[in-house]
Formats: sequence, C-alpha cells, structure tokens
Amino acid sequence: MNNNQIHDHEGTPAVIGVFDSGVGGLTVVKELRRLMPHQPIIYFGDTARTPYGTKGPETITRYAEEDSRFLLQQGAKILVIACHSAASVAAEHIKKTFDAPLFEVITPSIEQALAFTKNKKIGLIGTRATIGSRVYEAKIGAIDSEIQVIDQACPLLVPLVEEGWFKRRETRMIVKKYLRPLKERHVDTLILGCTHYPLLKPVIQEKIGKRVTLIDPSHEVARAVHTYLLKTGGLAGGPTSVANRYFLSDLHQTNQRIVQTFLGERIQIEQGGP
Amino acid sequence: MNNNQIHDHEGTPAVIGVFDSGVGGLTVVKELRRLMPHQPIIYFGDTARTPYGTKGPETITRYAEEDSRFLLQQGAKILVIACHSAASVAAEHIKKTFDAPLFEVITPSIEQALAFTKNKKIGLIGTRATIGSRVYEAKIGAIDSEIQVIDQACPLLVPLVEEGWFKRRETRMIVKKYLRPLKERHVDTLILGCTHYPLLKPVIQEKIGKRVTLIDPSHEVARAVHTYLLKTGGLAGGPTSVANRYFLSDLHQTNQRIVQTFLGERIQIEQGGP
Repeated sequence: MNNNQIHDHEGTPAVIGVFDSGVGGLTVVKELRRLMPHQPIIYFGDTARTPYGTKGPETITRYAEEDSRFLLQQGAKILVIACHSAASVAAEHIKKTFDAPLFEVITPSIEQALAFTKNKKIGLIGTRATIGSRVYEAKIGAIDSEIQVIDQACPLLVPLVEEGWFKRRETRMIVKKYLRPLKERHVDTLILGCTHYPLLKPVIQEKIGKRVTLIDPSHEVARAVHTYLLKTGGLAGGPTSVANRYFLSDLHQTNQRIVQTFLGERIQIEQGGP
Repeated sequence: MNNNQIHDHEGTPAVIGVFDSGVGGLTVVKELRRLMPHQPIIYFGDTARTPYGTKGPETITRYAEEDSRFLLQQGAKILVIACHSAASVAAEHIKKTFDAPLFEVITPSIEQALAFTKNKKIGLIGTRATIGSRVYEAKIGAIDSEIQVIDQACPLLVPLVEEGWFKRRETRMIVKKYLRPLKERHVDTLILGCTHYPLLKPVIQEKIGKRVTLIDPSHEVARAVHTYLLKTGGLAGGPTSVANRYFLSDLHQTNQRIVQTFLGERIQIEQGGP
C-alpha cells in the first residue's frame, strides 16, 4: 500500500497520528475529536523526555523523527506535530523523511493571524525553542513583509499550567509581566504558540486586553486536518471499529492527572514509544 | 584492575564521576572543587532528557543506570548522584548494579539535619519525584522514629532558577507560598532537596526565618566524598595531568548560559552521553 493513500480499499478512515513532547498535545486531540468525532486517532506523548522546548534543534529533530516513525508503525496515515518546539525546528525534516501528509500547529495559526490582524502587529508567545527558532517571523515575512511580529519567550507558563495554577495571583503577575512588551507595542492579534497556553486563555485575554484576538493553534490545526480529509475523502462518516490509542513514554500518576486537565475526560493510556 | 580500587598502581588520583538530570549538579561540582581543587572530575548532565523530577521511578532508574555506565566508561572510579530525583528512586539499584563506591546527595544531608535539629522537626523541599518517593522519611525514620519530616513539593522553583529569577517578586511570593506549611509547623532545619535550590538560598532563608538551619546537599555530599578520599588515600595532593571533563547530552546555547550561573565560571563543555 502506498504511504500517500490515506484510506485503504475497504474504506477504513485515515488514522490521524498526533505527537507532542508531553500531554499538552491533547489540546489538539480534543479539537480533532470535536470536529471529527469518529476519526481514529493515535496519540504519542513523549513524557519520558519532556519538555522539548528547552532543548537544542538537533535533539528536538532527532526526537521528532523517532516519534513520527513510531506513529506510522502504529498505523497512522496522517501526521500531526502538536508540539510547537518540534514544529518550529523539525517540520521540514519530517516532511522530507516520511511520505505521510504532514500537519503542524504553526502554519494554520499564521494563516489565521494574517486574516485577523488589521494594524499588522502580531504578537507571539511560546517556549524558548519556539521563539528562538524565528520560524514564525520567517514564514510571516515570506507572505507579507510589512507585518511586525512581536514575540516573547514564556518559559514559566508550562510549569504553571502543569501545577494547575490557572488563575492564581502569581500566574496573573507572571502572565502580565510576559505580555507587557506586546501590549506596549499594541499587537491586535496574539498567537498562543504552545499547546499549554489555551488553558491560560482567560488570564491571557485579561492581561493583553479584550480587543486583541487570540489565535489557538489547537483549533486551527484541527480545522486544517478536517478540511484536508473532507477534500480527500478520508473522513470517517460514522463510528468505526478502530479504537483511539494513547501512548505516553513515561506512564506516571502525575501525567494521568494532567491528561484529564488537558483532554477533559479520563482515557485509557498505554506505556510505549520509540 | 579491580573496580573497587580507587587509584591505580601509578597513584593516579581517583576520578570522580558526577551525574545529574541537567546542569543543576554543577553546584555539587563547585563544592567538590572547592574542597578538592586537584581531584579530577567527569560530569554528565542529561540535558537532552531533563528534568527527571517530573518522571516516573522506572524511567528515572533506567536513565540513572545509563548515566552511571557512561561515567564509568569514561574512566570514573567513584560515582556521585547529584540529582535528588535519581538519588531518591535509583540509588539502591545503582549500588547493586555497579562496583564503584557510590555517593548521593540524600544520605549526607540527612546526617547533617539529624545533627542540627533540636525540636525534631525537619523540613524538606524538592521536586515531585523526590517528595513522592518518601525516601527521606524512610531513611530518617530508620534512624530516629521521633523525628517529624514536614515536606513540600516545589515544582516551580527549578524553572524560576533556570529563568534567572532569583530575587524577583513573583519568586519571593511562590517561595513564601511553598514554605508556609513548613513555617507553620515550626521546622528548625530545612533540607534543600534539589540541586537548584541553593541558588535561592537568600529568599528561602528570608521566608522560612533566620533561625532555621538550611542544609545544602551539594556541600554535604562533597564533604562525604572528601572524607572518603582522605581515608582511602585516593585524594589528589597536587595538580595532575588528568583534565576535568564536562559532558551534556544536549549542548545548547541556553545551557551554556545556565552552566555559568551554576558553576560561576566558563568551562569547556562536550556533547556526549549514553
């Protein structure tokens, strides 16, 4: 069977393989399931090596390749990079290395941000790896060189979310501090460049101001996959016999607690990975 | 040559192998060098898989075994586990698996804390893995069952240190919040159960109160190694031809910045690891 075929002769719907450095990518799964409730999904969260965002490009690229190969071996026909750090530094490499259609959290967000901005000032927050990669600037600049991207690395937001400190005073102070330079530059659109950040949406919206449009990459990438499956005919029209599978490379109690935070429900998780 | 021999026939001083989940273990190296300026050291920081503290015991044990083997292959004759999470869950396994004399950051701190406490109330702060392992309680309880250990997991302190936010208002608030239960229980001794915490000593001392004795594991484990080398004759009396080596599994710009923060000087770092 050709790798480019996204459903086989019996019409089994295309299995979507999603990977992330940890459990944050479940925000993408949540959106995929909301749009395509019957589409089978395989998720891999690399909790044994999480986070990727503090590591170097070579290490992240190596991990992303291993993660992709694992998902394809498990039967995925479409790859989704839910990790912004991996999408920033490794997407081109993954595209060249494997035949499967590839989606990632960056490109659809950029398209949305470009559609929304009026004053051409787009804010971007993310991990150090995502911001340091300058990939958003490069991609946006190639489309419209007049756009200004004002970015800010926010390394404390991931641990704050993982602590469950969504609305605490310390969180609000730290969010405010991180967003101040973006607010001062009057961005009218803000890309939440990390899977964890949608959980801080209320605080982020409050601190950046009500008039700023927040772009949630989980939502945007799920829409892109949905559009693709509609066009190519791989969309599952109803329930299938293929069960969703969730793999974590480190299966630990804390992770299971966080899984519920991200996905909003209890699921069966398996230990596994490359 | 027998693995138990700590110096060879030519009297080359014993090489100390130190590993940590990242660069935090350099606080131990700093103390080792202060006490034994001529002793050769090999350091391995597993920055490609850092942190260990949020991961499960099986994963941490596997990593600790790989790290120890790497150090021994590089010529280490003595092993020092500078990572509290690894020391908490993997020290017994490492002791059984390898012949080299093993030191870790927990036991010497406990001995110091027991010597200092008067009211038999010892505070302990650390990562989730360290606190969850209950290893301090078990070890302390085996020596003196009247001692109360009041502990607190502080997952935000490592990222705060790595951000370099040593004295900021948010850091002070978070430290205060974490230490409140220990202060209310009137601990008179506080073990800093994570290599990163000594960098927050001034804030921790302020928030826990001046009368509380802080136990710094980096200092205590270095003293234990020093005492051992004095007894066994493996101490380097003067400069040797063996150079110190520093390996990180992810060699990235950010890490080099943090290395300086921890060690207080610039060093040559090599990419490497198991």
